[in-house]
Amino acid sequence: MAGPEWQSLEQCLEKHLPPDDLSQVKRILYGKQTRNLDLPRKALEAASERNFELKGYAFGAAKEQQRCPQIVRVGLVQNRIPLPTSAPVAEQVSALHKRIEEIAEVAAMCGVNIICFQEAWNMPFAFCTREKLPWTEFAESAEDGLTTRFCQKSRDIYHKADCGHTQKLIFDRWRYPLLPNLTKAEVFPRRGTHTELFGNLGHPVFQTQFGRIAVNICYGRHHPLNWLMYSVNGAEIIFNPSATIGELSESMWPIEARNAAIANHCFTCALNRVGQEHYPNEFTSGDGKKAHHDLGYFYGSSYVAAPDGSRTPGLSRNQDGLLVTELNLNLCQQINDFWTFKMTGRLEMYARELAEAVKPNYSPNIVKEDLVLAPSSG
Amino acid sequence: MAGPEWQSLEQCLEKHLPPDDLSQVKRILYGKQTRNLDLPRKALEAASERNFELKGYAFGAAKEQQRCPQIVRVGLVQNRIPLPTSAPVAEQVSALHKRIEEIAEVAAMCGVNIICFQEAWNMPFAFCTREKLPWTEFAESAEDGLTTRFCQKSRDIYHKADCGHTQKLIFDRWRYPLLPNLTKAEVFPRRGTHTELFGNLGHPVFQTQFGRIAVNICYGRHHPLNWLMYSVNGAEIIFNPSATIGELSESMWPIEARNAAIANHCFTCALNRVGQEHYPNEFTSGDGKKAHHDLGYFYGSSYVAAPDGSRTPGLSRNQDGLLVTELNLNLCQQINDFWTFKMTGRLEMYARELAEAVKPNYSPNIVKEDLVLAPSSG
Repeated sequence: MAGPEWQSLEQCLEKHLPPDDLSQVKRILYGKQTRNLDLPRKALEAASERNFELKGYAFGAAKEQQRCPQIVRVGLVQNRIPLPTSAPVAEQVSALHKRIEEIAEVAAMCGVNIICFQEAWNMPFAFCTREKLPWTEFAESAEDGLTTRFCQKSRDIYHKADCGHTQKLIFDRWRYPLLPNLTKAEVFPRRGTHTELFGNLGHPVFQTQFGRIAVNICYGRHHPLNWLMYSVNGAEIIFNPSATIGELSESMWPIEARNAAIANHCFTCALNRVGQEHYPNEFTSGDGKKAHHDLGYFYGSSYVAAPDGSRTPGLSRNQDGLLVTELNLNLCQQINDFWTFKMTGRLEMYARELAEAVKPNYSPNIVKEDLVLAPSSG
Repeated sequence: MAGPEWQSLEQCLEKHLPPDDLSQVKRILYGKQTRNLDLPRKALEAASERNFELKGYAFGAAKEQQRCPQIVRVGLVQNRIPLPTSAPVAEQVSALHKRIEEIAEVAAMCGVNIICFQEAWNMPFAFCTREKLPWTEFAESAEDGLTTRFCQKSRDIYHKADCGHTQKLIFDRWRYPLLPNLTKAEVFPRRGTHTELFGNLGHPVFQTQFGRIAVNICYGRHHPLNWLMYSVNGAEIIFNPSATIGELSESMWPIEARNAAIANHCFTCALNRVGQEHYPNEFTSGDGKKAHHDLGYFYGSSYVAAPDGSRTPGLSRNQDGLLVTELNLNLCQQINDFWTFKMTGRLEMYARELAEAVKPNYSPNIVKEDLVLAPSSG
């Protein structure tokens, strides 16, 4: 098991493979090549000063006769917690706001239209401890809590910023999509875990001027039907803000969000935390191991996947980072027309079969061995 | 675009990466390491003489107190067509039977319990030409056609073979699972394509002494709900016999079947053809390119994925091959207990939402921008 010091798959492959082999390996692993985005020098300098990785890629799409390109830039943020979990709650929140602001400013310089933060970004990922205090104190009102106000203030800053781009950071429009995150803090632990299954709100999609977006929180990525239902409701970009550690899920990470992009002809954005978070009280993780003070390390590796099966390289496994990705939303319809998974997905049949399957007396469609053996030999 | 001469991802990584990096790359790409199977020398020799690749891997599982291990060996066969597509139909079928027999004999030596052939394995993949003749002549009766009889005969041979193993090749039990393949030939082109969506038979699962198995044919792998419904019906191993070419799908290939194994706590077996198939009459592929005599090359790369997110390396991109993989079916329940995707998948909600979504007057759950903007700033 590599520790966090092992930086990334991409960095390793680029270091060791000859150019021709590298291009084949990347084609098989990552599909059609993404273009490197030419990011403003001042953004790159700011990222370097502020000590986070900044990468930019663009997915292409075919030119169409009847529609203009629908270009959107998304920003994915991964970060560690700046203060120890033992610091006063208000200081932790404030330090997180400050860090996010540093990164989001650079996103603004890069012309990012929609920014997404990691799951439970305004707190340490304290759920793993199963302690109530002081973590419930991170809960905030989604109406006018500190974090909501921070987002509103940030929006105003970026609207006024002169970054050489038309700035339209949709922090305001992110208010609703942020709700699940805030709600998670807010309701924890009163409604228990698995709020990432999105409570009872169904699968809403948010129509913004930068496309129809949805948020599938963390564990929700493991259920293909969550992704599907957002897609059925028209999502073109589905964000998956997550918090997951190496030992648990690292080999599944590149698969699930990417499969969702392929299966649903949409873009998916998978974000993960980085770093290790140390807690004052010991806790166990139900894995037969001794009590410990941290869950393990969050391996970052945030990436964006496209409907044509391609994806960006990941951010690093161990640094704060901002991944700027330019999407042409026309690609969703183009791939829909090409692969037609939406047209050929037999939703009626699944709806019928699922409705049967959830009945208490459901009898699975199993053909028993003796039936299979019945025919006489030839 | 690499041609078929580029052998495989695994071979390239093994050649160039230092051991420490290789093990990290493999961990991230393939998850928990599979064990190499110690295959009988005579099987390896036979494979070499008969000019096909033979690889063997085993997935582990934890020891349990209340259940014995449920060990099953599956064999995945990928092969090119031995004769040109212009040869008389009966000769082509006979050559394919002979080739499959050569490979299946080696599978028997390796103690394989369940063998799966590629999609439409008893014919060239002529669907791409959209010609009717002579391809409809490959259609056979699933009751007593040549291919059904070949399978029955082979079963008898393997039951008598002395290979130093308890031989229980379930060719007979494969009769039903084979039906979809045979049916595909049989019904083509009368019922059109997409029979891989399995007609109107729903998602049957076959209870055999080697576990509950299902067959999700080719294009069906693109629909997460196909995999899910087999799993709902109890499948522990889902085979996906396919035929797909490099330019079309190679970056999606490692993702889809593997995601299905993860999401459904089961094993999935993804098989693809190899080689290029040349047709006498020109045809077009609706891709704006000139008419051609072949579809492209089938890139092989067959693999098995496990519920814990791990997978075997793939067979090569360009050679006939047999992938022998030992599964411990206990892993399905173990991962189910650990990750609980089945328990947490809210099938009732999806059934309800899908039933709504398929109505002609369905109104997608879309929150419009002005609603999102409505709240006053803080």
